[in-house]
Order: sequence, then C-alpha cells, then structure tokens
Amino acid sequence: MSCIEEDKFASKIHQTKARALVLPRNPSLQNLITKKGIAWVSGYQPRLLFAQSLRLFYQPFQPSPIIHPTAVIAPEATIGKDIYIGANVVIHRGVKIGVRTCIHPNVVIAPDVEIGENTILHPNCTIYERSKIGSHCVIHSSAVIGADAFIFEATLQGWYKMYSSGYVVLEDGVEVGCNSTIERPGVGETCIGKNTKLGSSVVIAHNCQTGENCALIGQVGLAGDVKLGNRVVLAGQVGITNQAQIGDDVIATPKTSIFGDVQPGAEVSGSPAVDKRLYLKISAIYKRLPEMYEVFKKLKKNFFY
Amino acid sequence: MSCIEEDKFASKIHQTKARALVLPRNPSLQNLITKKGIAWVSGYQPRLLFAQSLRLFYQPFQPSPIIHPTAVIAPEATIGKDIYIGANVVIHRGVKIGVRTCIHPNVVIAPDVEIGENTILHPNCTIYERSKIGSHCVIHSSAVIGADAFIFEATLQGWYKMYSSGYVVLEDGVEVGCNSTIERPGVGETCIGKNTKLGSSVVIAHNCQTGENCALIGQVGLAGDVKLGNRVVLAGQVGITNQAQIGDDVIATPKTSIFGDVQPGAEVSGSPAVDKRLYLKISAIYKRLPEMYEVFKKLKKNFFY
Amino acid sequence: MSCIEEDKFASKIHQTKARALVLPRNPSLQNLITKKGIAWVSGYQPRLLFAQSLRLFYQPFQPSPIIHPTAVIAPEATIGKDIYIGANVVIHRGVKIGVRTCIHPNVVIAPDVEIGENTILHPNCTIYERSKIGSHCVIHSSAVIGADAFIFEATLQGWYKMYSSGYVVLEDGVEVGCNSTIERPGVGETCIGKNTKLGSSVVIAHNCQTGENCALIGQVGLAGDVKLGNRVVLAGQVGITNQAQIGDDVIATPKTSIFGDVQPGAEVSGSPAVDKRLYLKISAIYKRLPEMYEVFKKLKKNFFY
Repeated sequence: MSCIEEDKFASKIHQTKARALVLPRNPSLQNLITKKGIAWVSGYQPRLLFAQSLRLFYQPFQPSPIIHPTAVIAPEATIGKDIYIGANVVIHRGVKIGVRTCIHPNVVIAPDVEIGENTILHPNCTIYERSKIGSHCVIHSSAVIGADAFIFEATLQGWYKMYSSGYVVLEDGVEVGCNSTIERPGVGETCIGKNTKLGSSVVIAHNCQTGENCALIGQVGLAGDVKLGNRVVLAGQVGITNQAQIGDDVIATPKTSIFGDVQPGAEVSGSPAVDKRLYLKISAIYKRLPEMYEVFKKLKKNFFY
Repeated sequence: MSCIEEDKFASKIHQTKARALVLPRNPSLQNLITKKGIAWVSGYQPRLLFAQSLRLFYQPFQPSPIIHPTAVIAPEATIGKDIYIGANVVIHRGVKIGVRTCIHPNVVIAPDVEIGENTILHPNCTIYERSKIGSHCVIHSSAVIGADAFIFEATLQGWYKMYSSGYVVLEDGVEVGCNSTIERPGVGETCIGKNTKLGSSVVIAHNCQTGENCALIGQVGLAGDVKLGNRVVLAGQVGITNQAQIGDDVIATPKTSIFGDVQPGAEVSGSPAVDKRLYLKISAIYKRLPEMYEVFKKLKKNFFY
Repeated sequence: MSCIEEDKFASKIHQTKARALVLPRNPSLQNLITKKGIAWVSGYQPRLLFAQSLRLFYQPFQPSPIIHPTAVIAPEATIGKDIYIGANVVIHRGVKIGVRTCIHPNVVIAPDVEIGENTILHPNCTIYERSKIGSHCVIHSSAVIGADAFIFEATLQGWYKMYSSGYVVLEDGVEVGCNSTIERPGVGETCIGKNTKLGSSVVIAHNCQTGENCALIGQVGLAGDVKLGNRVVLAGQVGITNQAQIGDDVIATPKTSIFGDVQPGAEVSGSPAVDKRLYLKISAIYKRLPEMYEVFKKLKKNFFY
C-alpha cells in the first residue's frame, strides 16, 4: 500500500509496485490507476486516509498485561487493572497508575507520580517526582519528565540552586519523543496541553505552558516561562527565549529564533524571527549582499569623498 | 509563597493569591503589601532570597541509605558509608564511591570510575570508564558521562576511529542536565570546572575544558578542544566550533554561533557571533533589507547604467 | 605519546612532556625532535598515524562473553556464540543476535530486532521493534533506534497519528552517539549507510537515507525523507528540511540550515545555506550593515527626496 499525496507525484505512477494506492480527489488520476489494475481509495486528505488505512494492516508492539517478577514496586503504589509492567521497572511509593497502561522495561518512576489510563511509557524513560501524566499519552525511550528546573542564582560564592518544588503536567493525549526533557518549576507547574505532540530531543524548561494540539518537532527548545497558544507548530531546531508568549495557530519554520511575543496566526522564520514572507525576501537579498556592497562602495566613493 | 522579582511586576500584586511574598528593596511596594495583609521579606537580590526561602519549605526526594538487593556490584568496587544504591544499578570493577552518595535505579557505572561524596546520579544515567566525578555533583537522568570521542580519520577504506584513552573530570559541585553528553578524549582529559552547571541535551566534545561557575543552558554544543574561562554563560542552543578559546565572564545570547576566540567580558550574539550591541543594530537593519534593496536597485540604475 | 598535527604547532615543541611524538613529513622538525631526545614516527597523515599508534597502547573496556543471570531473554530469541549480555538486559521474542556481539547492562531490545556480529550496544540504549543493525556497529548510551515516526495528520478532532509499520536499517560499521534518535517510517525504511558515523544528540527522522562513510556531528537534525549521498559531512547543529537531497561529498559547516537540495561536492554554510565562500563574504558584510545603512540613508535622502 502506498500514498499519492500530491498531484505532482502522479508522474511516478509508472514506477509503483504498490497493489493498492491512496489517491487525491482527481478523476483522471483515478482512471489511470483503474486502467493499471491497481486498487485505490481516494479522499480530500489523502495522507489522513493513508494513516487511517495503515491501521487496518499494522498495529504497533504492545505486550499483554502482566507484572514482570523483576519489577520493583513499592507497596504504597496503586496500580490499576490490565496493566503491563515490564522487567526491571522501578516504581516508588505513592505512585498511581490507571488501567490498561503499559510501562515498558527499565522505566523508573519517582514518588507520588500519577499516570492515567491507556498510557504507554517506552523503555528507559524516567519520571521524576510528582509528575502528573494523563490518559492516552505516549512517552518515548530515554525521555525524562519532571527533572529539576535549571534555575541558579549568582552569588559571590558561585551559583545557588533554586529547588524545584513544582511539578510537570502532561494532559491527555500528549506524546513526548525520545531523549526529550520536560523540566518542573521552582514553584507551580510546567504544563503540556491536551493532545500536544513533542518530537525527539526537545527541551521544555520550567514553567512553560503549551495549549492543545501543538506540535514541537525534533530539537525544539523552550526557555523558562514560555507560553504557547493552541495548535502552534514549531519546526525542527526552533528556539524560544524566556517569557515569550506565542499566540494560537502560530507556525515557526525550521531553526527560527523567537526572541519575543508572536501574534496569533503568524508564520515566522529566521533569526531573529520575522514574518515568513519578509524572511523569504531577506534571504534572497542576503545572498546578494556582496554585490550590494560593491555598489555601495562605489556610491560612497563617488558621492561622499 | 511567591516572588516579585522586578518592580514592573508590582502591577500584578492585586491578582496574587500568595500568603507570603519576597520583595525587592522598595518601600512603597512594602507598604502596599503590608496593607494587603500579606507577609513579606525583602532583599537586594529577591530571586536569591526566594530560592533560599524555598529550601525552608521544600526538600527534593532523596532516598534513605540502602543498597537494593537487585543492584549488581562488582566485588572489586569500593563503596563508602551511608550510600543509596537503587534497584538494578550496575557497578563494574574498580569503581570507587564516596560517602552519602546517591545512585538512583538503573544507573550503569563502567570500570574504574571514581565518584566523590554527597553526589547524586539520577535514574538511567550512564558513566563510562575512568570518569572522575567530584563531590556534591548532580547528574540527571539519561545523561552520559565519558562516552567515546567523535574522532574519525578519513582513509581510502573509510573512517578510521581514534580510540579514547582519555577520561572525563567533573569537579566538585558540577550539575549535568538530562540527556546531556560529555565525551572523553583520545588522549588527556575533558574537564568541567568546579560548580559549573549544564542544562538538558548539552553536548560537550572531547578535550573541552570549562572554568568554574559557568552555566551552559539547554542544547548548547561545544566542539572538540573548546576552552571556556570562569563564569561563562552560554544561553540555549549556542554552538562553539573546535579550538575556540572563550574568556572569563563571556555571555552568549540564545542560538549564537561562535566560530573563534572571544575576549573576556564580551557579550556576543548572532551567527557569526558579534558584540551584542552590534547584533541588535544589525538585526534592526536585517528587517529593512528589502527596503534597502529597492533603493539600491534605483541607485544602481541611475548612476551606473 | 602526543601528536604534532600541523606545522604551526611546532612552536609548542619546547613545552612538550611527551616521550614519543607523531610528526608530519617535515625534516627540520624531525631533526629538532631527534636532538631533544624524543622518539618519533612520521607520516603523510599524522592524525591517522596517531590513531593507529594509540591502538597499540589502549583498548576500550570490553567485557568477557557471558550472559548475566539477571538478563531477561525471551525463549524465542536467537543468540549467537561468544556474546556478552550484561545485567538487566531485556530481549523480547524473535530477536536475533550474531556472534561476539556485546550488549551492555540495561539495554532493551524489542521484538524481531536483528543485530549482526561484533556489534556493541552501550548501557541504557533502546532498540524498537524490527530494527536491523549490522555487524561492527556501535550504539552509545541512551541512543534510541527505531522509535515511532513523528507523523501526525491534522483533523478537526486534533492530531491523528500515523502508525509506523516500517523499520530502521543500520548497515555494517555504523556508529550512533549518545542520546541520538533514529525514527522508523510509516512505511518502508530509514537507512543509515555503511560505515556512517553519528555524534551525540543527533535526530534522524522517518524515511531518511544516508550514503556510506558520512559523518553527522553532534546535534545534527534531519527532517523526514532527507537523502544524503556518500561521504557527506554535517558539522554540529546542522539542520536539513524534509525531502532535501544532498549529493556526494557535501560538507556543511556548523549550524548551517539546509532548506533544499545541495549539489555534489558543495561546501555550504549559513542560514539559509549558501556556498561557503559566498557565506564568508556575506558574513564580513553582515558586520558592516550598520555602516552601510547610514550611507544608504544619506543617499536616499540626497537623491530621492
């Protein structure tokens, strides 16, 4: 099964070995595929249809409910029904875990963590104390939830660490990629909103809050106290400085550096971030700077000296 | 308890639900708070005072000294008194660990590592062979200390790996964030100076040396052989190329790319890094490049053609 | 033993405490060292010679073959001879591992993974389902191979996740640094070519393919569907957007942002990436933008108003 996402890929049809295709709403393309004897389905959003179709054929690895005998579970923990707890998992006192949740091997969960239902923690991830993880969340391998805030005050004797009395909240449906880190605050909470997805090696500092249905792609970094609205999309390697407020539906293209607030609906690029259309103009001119500079030197010489 | 860090936050006082506040040295503000019936303390450095106050109310999770029966400890290891070694910790031969150190579950420590007193290793971190970690250090989850140098020599048969006979030194009081990596060198040592703090997903390559009381915030990367002076602050996503020497008290703002040496006391920004004041001017002009370009085209046409 | 890599370091000879040196092919330097009574060897590629010499003196830690009794190995797994499997390793059903491979403590390997001969998996790394890892590979601590693709389709109800039915292939001789992540695709494979080396905190998204003998240094990020030719070198913090095709022998300097295809043999820099020579010119002018802007304002005033 394969997917023809955009009409421009139509030219590649002659090479396909797929026996079934997901097509856009394009009658001539559909006719062509029919003539080639390939089964197809079509929809307004072919990638979504493809993703839906894929679930008919493939289900990810999910172990059967069991508590492995090597797991080390504090007697004061509360574990729901139909749970999988893999080998060498360590669960400290006061932890609560909802039904049908799946804790893969070698995960460590610190005291007083709460985890909802149908959530998956992949191998080798770590949950620090008091984190609250919702239902239907996915935490990928080596991710760390609830680590200490990076807050140090300068003194004559060197850095003085602020302790992190706060905690992290992941609302329902949040996904956190491999090797990502979400830090808890000195006071209060760091909150990732419902159904927001984080890629790999993302770093979220203390007191950040994201809205619902955001997507933060690989290697994004948010400094302390950043607020994101709903449906914000930050592409790979984007960075946002502390206390910035980003409105609903903002899109930042890869490697954008955001040094301040961004209005709802804006699409921003560059370092420092500007409107994407302006960035595209600047980028074109940036390549012509040496040529501009030559003219500039002549002009300067002709008119000012 | 909350903290009013700067006078500009004074306008938010009417919203606070705090029953105690840390205030700056501002008499009118203090009067206002007193009238509202809220307890307060005040100091020249309110954030520091707040951090100090927090320790009266909150202590982070620290398990009682015990060696968990599932820990796998080589008989040739030397373990000090009053140590916590959590479940599934693996300690190889020749390791020495000082008193009151806390090794959380699922940590792995390779041969001949030395760890001082009162140090904390959080769950799932890994210490490669011969690393020397001081006293009062904190290593967060999934951090890796002492991994192989990334040194490969090009040959006609492909990359030839230089083995890493050196080791990593973390001096006393060093803190290493989650998912950070410090690489040991081919020969010699990689050294993080006393009381220096690293955030999450920081990468320190072979042979780097930092001074004391530096702060390297999340996602900073140092290439091989970089030297930092004392009290250097590198904000998030800063990168420094190999062999650069950075003087005492240098500050680099977020995402700065440093391609060479930086003089002591400089504050740098941008890519390539320049003095921060120059960067701010450049950034303002960068946004006006399209406008400049239009004028440039007219001038060019009028005067040279 | 030490290495004098370039002739410019010759001035440091008087400070060396080394008892043996690796020198470039420089007769006067060789005479000087001989007179100082220091042993030396010399070659056209001194760093390579140094790396080769180092192997005579130093071998990294490699445990003797043994299967630790705490390892949890599914009965349906197939394990070759002379293998080391450390404490707390978890190996699921259907896994196949070749002879003389070394699986360090606390590694987790999901179902149906295949691993070749003489490969090393360092502590705390995680291999997701169906990954195929070749022979003579090295996977460093906390690296994750084969995690879910970051593919979510927007719907009115929020993000809809595409399941990842594909898998990751690491060909022979691949090395993956600490805390790096390689994601498997929705359909098909993500492939790292023979003898390609990845540094720490590198992120490779779904469906990427690299050629042979590439080097991707720390914190590099490749978005989905990126193709790299052979011998491509990407320096630290480089990012490449999705679907870009990068030719053989391309070099990208640190923090370069590549937003499209790059021709074979090109050396690129900057954001957006341009030819390195052009970048150096642009960078020089970038620092003079404030001065240009002053002249520009005068010209504009004189000639257009």
